[in-house]
Amino acid sequence: MIHVTIWNEFRHEKTDKAVQEMYPKGIHGQLAEFLKEDFTVKTATLDEPEHGLSEEVLSETDVLLWWGHVAHDEVSDEVVARVHQRVLEGMGLIVLHSGHFSKIFKKLMGTSCDLKWREDEKHARVWNVNPSHPIVEGVGEYIDLEKEEMYGEHFDIPAPDELIFVSWFPGGEVFRSGVTYRRGNGKIFYFQPGHETYPSYYNEKVQRVIKNGVRWCRPTENTYPHYGHFEALEKEEEETK
Amino acid sequence: MIHVTIWNEFRHEKTDKAVQEMYPKGIHGQLAEFLKEDFTVKTATLDEPEHGLSEEVLSETDVLLWWGHVAHDEVSDEVVARVHQRVLEGMGLIVLHSGHFSKIFKKLMGTSCDLKWREDEKHARVWNVNPSHPIVEGVGEYIDLEKEEMYGEHFDIPAPDELIFVSWFPGGEVFRSGVTYRRGNGKIFYFQPGHETYPSYYNEKVQRVIKNGVRWCRPTENTYPHYGHFEALEKEEEETK
Amino acid sequence: MIHVTIWNEFRHEKTDKAVQEMYPKGIHGQLAEFLKEDFTVKTATLDEPEHGLSEEVLSETDVLLWWGHVAHDEVSDEVVARVHQRVLEGMGLIVLHSGHFSKIFKKLMGTSCDLKWREDEKHARVWNVNPSHPIVEGVGEYIDLEKEEMYGEHFDIPAPDELIFVSWFPGGEVFRSGVTYRRGNGKIFYFQPGHETYPSYYNEKVQRVIKNGVRWCRPTENTYPHYGHFEALEKEEEETK
Amino acid sequence: MIHVTIWNEFRHEKTDKAVQEMYPKGIHGQLAEFLKEDFTVKTATLDEPEHGLSEEVLSETDVLLWWGHVAHDEVSDEVVARVHQRVLEGMGLIVLHSGHFSKIFKKLMGTSCDLKWREDEKHARVWNVNPSHPIVEGVGEYIDLEKEEMYGEHFDIPAPDELIFVSWFPGGEVFRSGVTYRRGNGKIFYFQPGHETYPSYYNEKVQRVIKNGVRWCRPTENTYPHYGHFEALEKEEEETK
Repeated sequence: MIHVTIWNEFRHEKTDKAVQEMYPKGIHGQLAEFLKEDFTVKTATLDEPEHGLSEEVLSETDVLLWWGHVAHDEVSDEVVARVHQRVLEGMGLIVLHSGHFSKIFKKLMGTSCDLKWREDEKHARVWNVNPSHPIVEGVGEYIDLEKEEMYGEHFDIPAPDELIFVSWFPGGEVFRSGVTYRRGNGKIFYFQPGHETYPSYYNEKVQRVIKNGVRWCRPTENTYPHYGHFEALEKEEEETK
Repeated sequence: MIHVTIWNEFRHEKTDKAVQEMYPKGIHGQLAEFLKEDFTVKTATLDEPEHGLSEEVLSETDVLLWWGHVAHDEVSDEVVARVHQRVLEGMGLIVLHSGHFSKIFKKLMGTSCDLKWREDEKHARVWNVNPSHPIVEGVGEYIDLEKEEMYGEHFDIPAPDELIFVSWFPGGEVFRSGVTYRRGNGKIFYFQPGHETYPSYYNEKVQRVIKNGVRWCRPTENTYPHYGHFEALEKEEEETK
Repeated sequence: MIHVTIWNEFRHEKTDKAVQEMYPKGIHGQLAEFLKEDFTVKTATLDEPEHGLSEEVLSETDVLLWWGHVAHDEVSDEVVARVHQRVLEGMGLIVLHSGHFSKIFKKLMGTSCDLKWREDEKHARVWNVNPSHPIVEGVGEYIDLEKEEMYGEHFDIPAPDELIFVSWFPGGEVFRSGVTYRRGNGKIFYFQPGHETYPSYYNEKVQRVIKNGVRWCRPTENTYPHYGHFEALEKEEEETK
Repeated sequence: MIHVTIWNEFRHEKTDKAVQEMYPKGIHGQLAEFLKEDFTVKTATLDEPEHGLSEEVLSETDVLLWWGHVAHDEVSDEVVARVHQRVLEGMGLIVLHSGHFSKIFKKLMGTSCDLKWREDEKHARVWNVNPSHPIVEGVGEYIDLEKEEMYGEHFDIPAPDELIFVSWFPGGEVFRSGVTYRRGNGKIFYFQPGHETYPSYYNEKVQRVIKNGVRWCRPTENTYPHYGHFEALEKEEEETK
């Protein structure tokens, strides 16, 4: 059984009526709602001690989801370093929507992670450009979202290891909206849908993608590589010379 | 000085009035018009002997451009094999628009190279998603095309070595419209604009991209790798054992 | 349950005593021996009608393994086209050792697939350079092979989608010995070990890699993309203009 | 003319006799020696004010080289942030040898950048695995180094955008020794040779690679992308709705 921890900033939901109505249990609550059908799920939020991400919680987490927006700067550098270390050790990480600007995503990417954006109550279409990838299993050729915030290129990320989705927006923009990366022993999936006042996390295809993403991100059982000084493996050769 | 050969099927221009009016000297003629500003340019067409691509012509070509559409099947397998061999040896290849379905592109890609398409007299926008790449030099964030045929995902190509452009179409589609590949010692650039009845090859930014592409594709001066049986380089070791 | 078909040329085993002794049931027999622990396994060989790869067999195959060496040219183009089509439709393909020079691998890669080689009864070491990949699960940092044929760079393949293993040879060579590709809806894994007179397919780590590869290659349940003429999805917009 | 700034930690040369003898003008001095044949060259070192990397110096630098080893931690975070920002804006960066552990490389990669290492006075062989890349122009199939420090896999870096070189070491290790990345508008090349007591920077092929790398890394003339709030480009459509 895969152990998933859903981290949500959980601030919009406390102050903004439109967000409360869209996600009455919080964005993490709605993500948990469908993820618990397939996985063992915990949630954690910014205002908990250590943001809910103690060493113990992280050590028991196979895949961490991250949703943040207005309070990226309030996430402590210590917790960011801890999450970063866990990713390098093998924990999967799924970064959602405005999490593109989180400290942890920027630290893993090494770039500004900046982009164009616009809230205009318009629809969007998420095209599958990687039909053999397990993340798109059951999703078909595209996902129609009735409303989604426009995120547009240039998206300042490293060239993804795998490009999974490219989004179309009616205002004339495109966006690499589903991308994967490997960092150390860990796997990362960024997925764009999820503006706080739009119903994307109720969309069944979006839910399917996130579930597929969790499975794809799960840690690979493997010895962590040995780093540092290393004795030659070709011993005999040494001696004969 | 880079030696460019422009290959054009040159059939539409002989029979279709709209194409004649758009490209009175042929598509190859218009491509030559701006490429000769920077390079030494030859042209070759389907109905010439050996399609204009003799061993001699190819051996003197640094970068070959390819535009074809209705007569892909009339290109002889022998000439395709010859072009393929030259690419592996280092010749650059720029495949334009409907050339995605040419024998040579399919042979180099290993996939069907199929896609969605629609002619609807609409505009298009070609987004630059790779701002540090020499192919986008001087192009800015996007290219607005007043009219271009819709090509849409899924585009059945291998994951590109480098994704340079992604196009937006008003009908709701996206397309990986500028992609690069390396095959053997050769470099390949596919670029989508160039429907035969639309003025894309008069667009200055499109011209700039193609010129940049020629420079990027030029052969690298290098020894062709040695293949086949190979004596061990670590000789002494052999003896001591 | 994943359905695996193991294709083996099965010629060396009929004529060469050393190969018979190493693989008394044929190379396919030894591959089947460990793969049937986890999968439903069939075998097929060159000298069967249609090389054992009828439409029916292929349509029931999730993942095809390919071992060939001296008789690549005897594989009919029709069967190669059939296998190619099935890969584009989603069938996984694992190409082993000298299969690098098979018609099907060359057709999927678009390159010569040539390399350096040497049989010298020496050992080899296969380094894992992709520790988070499911193909390396349980394999650790490297695989020591007591004997393996040297395959050396330059290996004339497209830049792999994922580089999994790099091999070290005592004569002074390196080789990208585990690489993955996606083509159409299908996934491909090339893995170098497996010279016909050496015991690599008895090595437990090699067996583990091949089993992991089968799971990684399995088809993704997905609608095959729609290609060809495509009506605009943004209908309303059309009408208002 | 490309403006190159060579940054060297310049500590070993002040205290270690073997390094002084190998590189009497400092490692930066030897790098400058051959780079000034083709480029406009400046040098900068750790113990200068702002480590020699003021805003002014960086704004006039097209490509920055980085060699550091024992004093990575003494490089101020402010200067690292400044260099990072300049890379995102387009400055090229070449990281040499032990620079893999520099703050700037780790910040751009997002990983630990750790590896195996061993000083054993042995030789090394740097294999070219990307024969069409401009960085390998004139280098041939491999570079023999009479002595080089062993760096071995796993090298904890993101999957490179382009893999250029793979090194072989007599003790039994391999290493991805030449890799490129794009970050923001900037290009990065990491190249492994250059231990402080070994003569790699006198090797003509190593010199050729570094010169080629400078040309490949040069900034692309381009508008910096627009980030942040963005008005829809498809204005008419907005109105008709």
